Amino acid sequence: MLPIDPQRMLADLRALAEFGKLGTGVNRRSLTPEDLAARDWLLERMRAAGLDAQIDGIGSVAGRTPGSRRHILIGSHTDSVPKGGWLDGSMGVIFGLEIARAYVEAGRSDDAGVEVISFIDEEGRFAGLMGSAAFTGKVTESDFGKLTDERGQKLESALQAAGYAGRELLRCEPERHAAYLEAHIEQGPVLETAGKQIGLVTDIVGVARCEVVFTGQADHAGTTPMELRRDAAAALYAFADDLARFCREEGSDRTVWNLGIAAMDPGAYNVVTRQARLGVEYRDPSEAVLDRIRRYIGESAKRVAKRHRVSAQVVAGAGIRPNPMDESILSHLEEAAADLGASSMRMPSGAGHDATMLAPLIPSAMMFVPSIGGRSHDISEDTREEDIVLGLKVLARAVERIIAPA
Amino acid sequence: MLPIDPQRMLADLRALAEFGKLGTGVNRRSLTPEDLAARDWLLERMRAAGLDAQIDGIGSVAGRTPGSRRHILIGSHTDSVPKGGWLDGSMGVIFGLEIARAYVEAGRSDDAGVEVISFIDEEGRFAGLMGSAAFTGKVTESDFGKLTDERGQKLESALQAAGYAGRELLRCEPERHAAYLEAHIEQGPVLETAGKQIGLVTDIVGVARCEVVFTGQADHAGTTPMELRRDAAAALYAFADDLARFCREEGSDRTVWNLGIAAMDPGAYNVVTRQARLGVEYRDPSEAVLDRIRRYIGESAKRVAKRHRVSAQVVAGAGIRPNPMDESILSHLEEAAADLGASSMRMPSGAGHDATMLAPLIPSAMMFVPSIGGRSHDISEDTREEDIVLGLKVLARAVERIIAPA
Repeated sequence: MLPIDPQRMLADLRALAEFGKLGTGVNRRSLTPEDLAARDWLLERMRAAGLDAQIDGIGSVAGRTPGSRRHILIGSHTDSVPKGGWLDGSMGVIFGLEIARAYVEAGRSDDAGVEVISFIDEEGRFAGLMGSAAFTGKVTESDFGKLTDERGQKLESALQAAGYAGRELLRCEPERHAAYLEAHIEQGPVLETAGKQIGLVTDIVGVARCEVVFTGQADHAGTTPMELRRDAAAALYAFADDLARFCREEGSDRTVWNLGIAAMDPGAYNVVTRQARLGVEYRDPSEAVLDRIRRYIGESAKRVAKRHRVSAQVVAGAGIRPNPMDESILSHLEEAAADLGASSMRMPSGAGHDATMLAPLIPSAMMFVPSIGGRSHDISEDTREEDIVLGLKVLARAVERIIAPA
Repeated sequence: MLPIDPQRMLADLRALAEFGKLGTGVNRRSLTPEDLAARDWLLERMRAAGLDAQIDGIGSVAGRTPGSRRHILIGSHTDSVPKGGWLDGSMGVIFGLEIARAYVEAGRSDDAGVEVISFIDEEGRFAGLMGSAAFTGKVTESDFGKLTDERGQKLESALQAAGYAGRELLRCEPERHAAYLEAHIEQGPVLETAGKQIGLVTDIVGVARCEVVFTGQADHAGTTPMELRRDAAAALYAFADDLARFCREEGSDRTVWNLGIAAMDPGAYNVVTRQARLGVEYRDPSEAVLDRIRRYIGESAKRVAKRHRVSAQVVAGAGIRPNPMDESILSHLEEAAADLGASSMRMPSGAGHDATMLAPLIPSAMMFVPSIGGRSHDISEDTREEDIVLGLKVLARAVERIIAPA
């Protein structure tokens, strides 16, 4: 057994939460001073554990146990959303640190060692999953010049200021990286509701976004007869309600959707709406289901627009393809949970994670620990200490099973 | 026949349009410097016509032909919405000026003379129909202290600065004011579509407003199962679409409605909407129909909220009761149109007008001239010159019929 130390892991997690601390959470967006200080701290902790560690040209931090030909990669991210939780991402990185540290302390030198990684900017200050996208070659140095945050700050300037610019990028090496494991908080209420301790992620759902824009004509809302109006708002309401019905009836039992943005122009009691914009997001583990919804949106927008004498435009937004997790790694996690008497359940991930970038290249899997009340992306995010500790134990046990099969 | 001079009327209309001129329209909100200058000009034009004229304690301007025991009141308003049209309100006032002027020039001294009035702030910088509300006692000096514009400027300060504060208010005197006639642009496409020159207003619709607020819970839109969401936006879309259906199927054939305001909080692709606010306006000439819709809104909001596990609150806004026009005055207008060979049609007014305040006190009626393309409340508002001239002739003919029946 790898001699992991749960108390040491918790102390590291709490030390990390001091960087950008905000009440019970953290405010640690990528490449801010708080985030950079956390990266320096993490690098030092890796080196103190005896790992060969470095920060790369985009800010991702990785450290590996010396002396092995291959490595099991364990990680997640240490940046946060604005006013985010203390565990989101950080827990998975510190689990990796503790397991690598235990590996070194045990004096092991198997064919496969352990490598821990913190991918930068998973939360998308510059681009969602940016660090793991760079690690897997989806983002290259030639893309850096195009990326800015929502206030127009350039990624390149931020990397320059951090002192990372010009360094080589860490890259996924499928011949060396035997597998990728990511532990994460669930960010939803499923485990808590089901009374389970460990979530075994079967796949990470795909996410599709679009904006549906209806354009009609502004008119006096008292004097213009209903049959002469070209009311963009009426089209939006009808479209939104019908799309919800379609997703409910024709989506899979795993389809989720959100129509969280609606903007009316001019937006007045007594003026017929000229333009109405609806923000649409939908998720499903199946590309085919996402395609079916995408097609329906186009057809329905056209149909509703015609009925309301307005025009419709569907503007596709950024998306993430669905990715199944590796069944063999998943089974190791499942059996590790069983070994430790932990209750577990298979479940999809409705949120995107760095594992979605790794999955196409190397065998990858994720496990969840329960989130109290399902809360996340908020300083109220938390997980019971015993659930965190059990998560570490299950992950360490799974790593052991992969490195040295019984 | 009253010796009206259409060219003189047009010249006055064009002179008035110079105050606050903005392209082809005017920017002349009540009690702004442009509006005050227009009032001074109007007062001088009335006096030059030989009328007993004054500006009262709230800024309404009136002038009457001397020597009569009673007066036919003719008017409308000379203030505009921001970036409004040159005819809206102004045309009805200048028609009154021209008819009173012709009356004086003809040396007439019937039992009933003519009085022209420009009610202040019909467009509601401080309060919609404010001048006619003060004229009919619905607003009194004791209310002045409560009224401010949308930027918090006080009515009292504006009246003080204008030099109107402390003056007596003009009041409707049912024993002296024999009738009220208001000519106005249609502000809709009905006359143009029907190819008619004169609209005979049968009634002014009632207007009701409310805000429907759904409150649920913000959650991660990827990880929160649909059946656990409390999605305020979904409730809003369902409610809005259903309310439109109800108004269409259960309203009268004269009911119009507008759901022109929708605001989502937090308003993000990936966050379930915590609060959704819908602005609702509906109009009908029947109080009973308005009541039926009001009741349905309450019931439906509650029902939809329950289905979506959110709460609903309906906040009533300002409203105007429906008002029928006086059939006898209306017949005079109808016959005047026939006398002049003008094509006319009876129609309701979907917009509110000062006549709605006068109607409960004295016999009141309105007539419309066509708006090109139905446009209004915009600098693109216009009416063909021959339609304006015909409107003046019909109105003058109707006044003559009322003063001196054949």
